[in-house]
Order: sequence, then structure tokens, then C-alpha cells
Amino acid sequence: METIFSKILRDEVPCHKIYDDDLVFAFLDIAPLSRGHALLIPKEPAIMMHELSEPSAAAIGRVLPRICRAVMAATGASAYNVLQNNGGLARQAVAHVHFHIIPKFSDESGLFVRWNPGSLTTAEGAELAAAIAKELAE
Amino acid sequence: METIFSKILRDEVPCHKIYDDDLVFAFLDIAPLSRGHALLIPKEPAIMMHELSEPSAAAIGRVLPRICRAVMAATGASAYNVLQNNGGLARQAVAHVHFHIIPKFSDESGLFVRWNPGSLTTAEGAELAAAIAKELAE
Repeated sequence: METIFSKILRDEVPCHKIYDDDLVFAFLDIAPLSRGHALLIPKEPAIMMHELSEPSAAAIGRVLPRICRAVMAATGASAYNVLQNNGGLARQAVAHVHFHIIPKFSDESGLFVRWNPGSLTTAEGAELAAAIAKELAE
Repeated sequence: METIFSKILRDEVPCHKIYDDDLVFAFLDIAPLSRGHALLIPKEPAIMMHELSEPSAAAIGRVLPRICRAVMAATGASAYNVLQNNGGLARQAVAHVHFHIIPKFSDESGLFVRWNPGSLTTAEGAELAAAIAKELAE
């Protein structure tokens, strides 16, 4: 599927590149939530995280600490959020897996999250965990 | 450093486990933002993502698609957010790296994010990308 990211990967659309290897690519978000807001993407054209191959997903994980360190060092940030959205309902804006690395400098900038937790009874938790573990075992 | 997660990893505190291997562990969040809200953590006791070793970070990445698939299959969700917070300012609540996998079933449940983007001039972007790439090259 054609997206702005596949065009960036083919060098048809310019970007502010920060990292490039065989499996992954990183660049600055041009509509940043804060200074240093970066995007880390697999070269594999998976839309959502659960569709990404293990080698690409491992490569994303492997490089993520390095990207975070470099963004922190270059911007002076000491806190940050890593966010990856899947599906329009979850605010995914480009149909290609992407991890946001968003420095948080103050309460007034960066990613704003509202946390409205519920509860989990022991019985609900046991049943749900068993159902998820069963899917993982298949 | 001692945290609730290190106690869970040592089996001193109970949890609803969904996955376990040599390097990573996953279980249900007991204060879920939505049904199926899961946590994926490295066994390595790093506090923030930029402090995590490459093997542990790669292992997290490798298993993340499988966990997402299993959570989606067991809950019927088709959208979800993956979130990892670093530092108190960024809402990190436990001092041990953890990835939230949060199903999004409706606008009224799951993770709420407010997106307040700025802009990036070509000159700012070029300068910042060069500074981050230089850190990555060191």
C-alpha cells in the first residue's frame, strides 16, 4: 500500500533522516508534539503492529534504545513517551507501522494522555489471561 | 531497584500472566484502560527505554506483534495503542521499562490522547536531525 512513508523510504519525498539500516528507518516528525519528536518505522510495509514480521519487529526493538538516547542527548530531554497507534479509532494517521518518540519537557508540551483506569476482578483476569495465553500458544 | 514488577518477575506478587520467555514477560494490567490492557516488560531491570540493552529491546520488539495478535484475538478488538512512558513527567508509574498494549473499542474507552502538533521549519529540522544523527554515530 502506498503511503507518505513508503514515498519517504523510496526517497521520493524528502525528510529529516536520523537513522537508516537494512530493516528500519528513522526521521523527524514534521508536525512535532515537542522538539525532537521522531518516528521510527520498519521498511517492511506492514500497516499495524500485529501484522509486522518478527525480524522487522526485533529490529525496531533493537534500535529503539539508541534512537531514544540520541534524541534525549540532542534535545536535553530527560522524559519521553514512545507511542505506536494501530487503526483509525486508535488515532493511526499513516497506514504503515510507526513508533513515535516524543520528548516531554514540561506538562504543557509533548504527548498529553488521559488515564481513566477501570478494575479487573481476579475471576475476569484469570479468564482473560487464559484466553490470551491460549491464542499465544497456537 | 525494587519495583512491583521485579516482585512479579520473582513470583512474589501474583499476576495474570500471558507470556514468559528468557528475556521478556507479559501480564494483564490490573487497572486496565480497556478490556485486554496488557503489559510487556523485559526481565532486565532497566528503568527507561534508553537504558535497556539491545538483546532485551530486540526481544521486546520480536514478541510484540504476537502479543498484539493474541490480545486482539481474545478480545475482538481491531484497534489498539502501544505506549511506553519514560520518566515521571511522561507519566511513568513503575520504574521498570513497560509497554502498554491497550485495545481501543470505542471513542469512550481505552487510551485518550490529545494531539497538539507544532511545526518544524526546514532549517530547524535539518539542524536537529544532524544533531541526533551525530549522537547516533557516536
